[in-house]
Amino acid sequence: MIKKITIIGSGNVATQLSLAFKRANFEIIQIISRNQKSGEQLAKKINTSFSNDIKGVLKSDFIIICVNDDNISSVVKKLPDIPVVHTSGNTSIEVLKNKKIYGVIYPVQSLSKERKINFNNVPVCVEASNRNFEKKLVTIIKKISNHVYILDSKSRKYLHLSAVITSNFSNYCYSISKDILDQKKIDFSLLKPLIIYTAEKTLYQEPKLNQTGPAKRGDKKTIKEHLEILDNKNYKNIYKLLSKNILKEYEK
Amino acid sequence: MIKKITIIGSGNVATQLSLAFKRANFEIIQIISRNQKSGEQLAKKINTSFSNDIKGVLKSDFIIICVNDDNISSVVKKLPDIPVVHTSGNTSIEVLKNKKIYGVIYPVQSLSKERKINFNNVPVCVEASNRNFEKKLVTIIKKISNHVYILDSKSRKYLHLSAVITSNFSNYCYSISKDILDQKKIDFSLLKPLIIYTAEKTLYQEPKLNQTGPAKRGDKKTIKEHLEILDNKNYKNIYKLLSKNILKEYEK
Repeated sequence: MIKKITIIGSGNVATQLSLAFKRANFEIIQIISRNQKSGEQLAKKINTSFSNDIKGVLKSDFIIICVNDDNISSVVKKLPDIPVVHTSGNTSIEVLKNKKIYGVIYPVQSLSKERKINFNNVPVCVEASNRNFEKKLVTIIKKISNHVYILDSKSRKYLHLSAVITSNFSNYCYSISKDILDQKKIDFSLLKPLIIYTAEKTLYQEPKLNQTGPAKRGDKKTIKEHLEILDNKNYKNIYKLLSKNILKEYEK
Repeated sequence: MIKKITIIGSGNVATQLSLAFKRANFEIIQIISRNQKSGEQLAKKINTSFSNDIKGVLKSDFIIICVNDDNISSVVKKLPDIPVVHTSGNTSIEVLKNKKIYGVIYPVQSLSKERKINFNNVPVCVEASNRNFEKKLVTIIKKISNHVYILDSKSRKYLHLSAVITSNFSNYCYSISKDILDQKKIDFSLLKPLIIYTAEKTLYQEPKLNQTGPAKRGDKKTIKEHLEILDNKNYKNIYKLLSKNILKEYEK
């Protein structure tokens, strides 16, 4: 039974996973982080010990690596032979292959340190080096989330790509809109109900059926008028490219 | 006092406005629509009379035009001299200038016939041909919405442009993601909590501060890897252009 957990990292994922596991009565026995300040803060928050040196790692049942993708392989090299997982969407399980027992737990959510989140609603994708460890991982992740999926590294990479498009690019669209409205001294709040409504529609019907707007309707006159009043060249290019693609998709 | 309302059109905006005004105890005395079927349906829904010919318009206090942008001017020509508004985000108030008293009420929301909506939460932008009518419009719109804004035609055009970017383009990003996942047989539901969370973040903090992801972090390695696995040429171009713009914005 996995009971004692070590967390490596002290960023957003480390913070939210620590809190979720603590709430589920796991024992976080140590936070290890190169960042003294945020590491100490997190250790204090969950009332556990802290080390800024990976060589000081204590014995535990299970290590969770929550560091930047680029640093995972160097961290792994320094670890003793304890079952270990990383939490990266875009990194293959192969980066851990020199260990005996290893895996991946990838929470499909944009986590931040400060904003409280109900981890039960966060989908978590699991991959493991063998069937027995996969079972163990599923069992413990089910204690913190109601949505556990088995997904291999290749699929996880596509999921991560899709998450970037769906979340980061949408947010950038919000950001462009706010910039355009700010310049005209129009309150961005006017768009907030529309933003929420558009997102919530994905819960009821697939996005392709939810598409609305001038490009979907083939309304080239409105598209032309929008392009005429858009004076930012970059925004113009984005508007053009996205409209062109939507037009093409729906004229069929 | 405006009490008796005529609605021209029987689409999404006509439907939701009719329902909202009816709920607020206005009297919809007539639905006029070229589309016999949807016009009759709407008239039945709100228990009023229907005509498919604009010449049959009854006397009322107030006419609301809810037809496609391109058809507004031809509809206006045929109307008697009753105060009239259109509901288009992208159309200037000028299209009504041959009338005595006229204006615009633009609901900033993506409305559909079927899905129930709490109209109280829908922001409505108001513009009028004179101060007195503006006051009247604000008074009646306040009976159906808690969020009334005064906005001139030029500003409304920028708002409409921003609504397209923030809503239609976000939805297209959701749509691309679903397509990528479908092809790999990965469940799109995995992304739904992320979609909702990303949208809700706009309620707490401006989008620019909410930006996350590889492009925001300057993580060119991940961007390159994503582009390598994206085999749809159109999606590749969209990913490239949006990432390039985000990279540029945050490297400052």
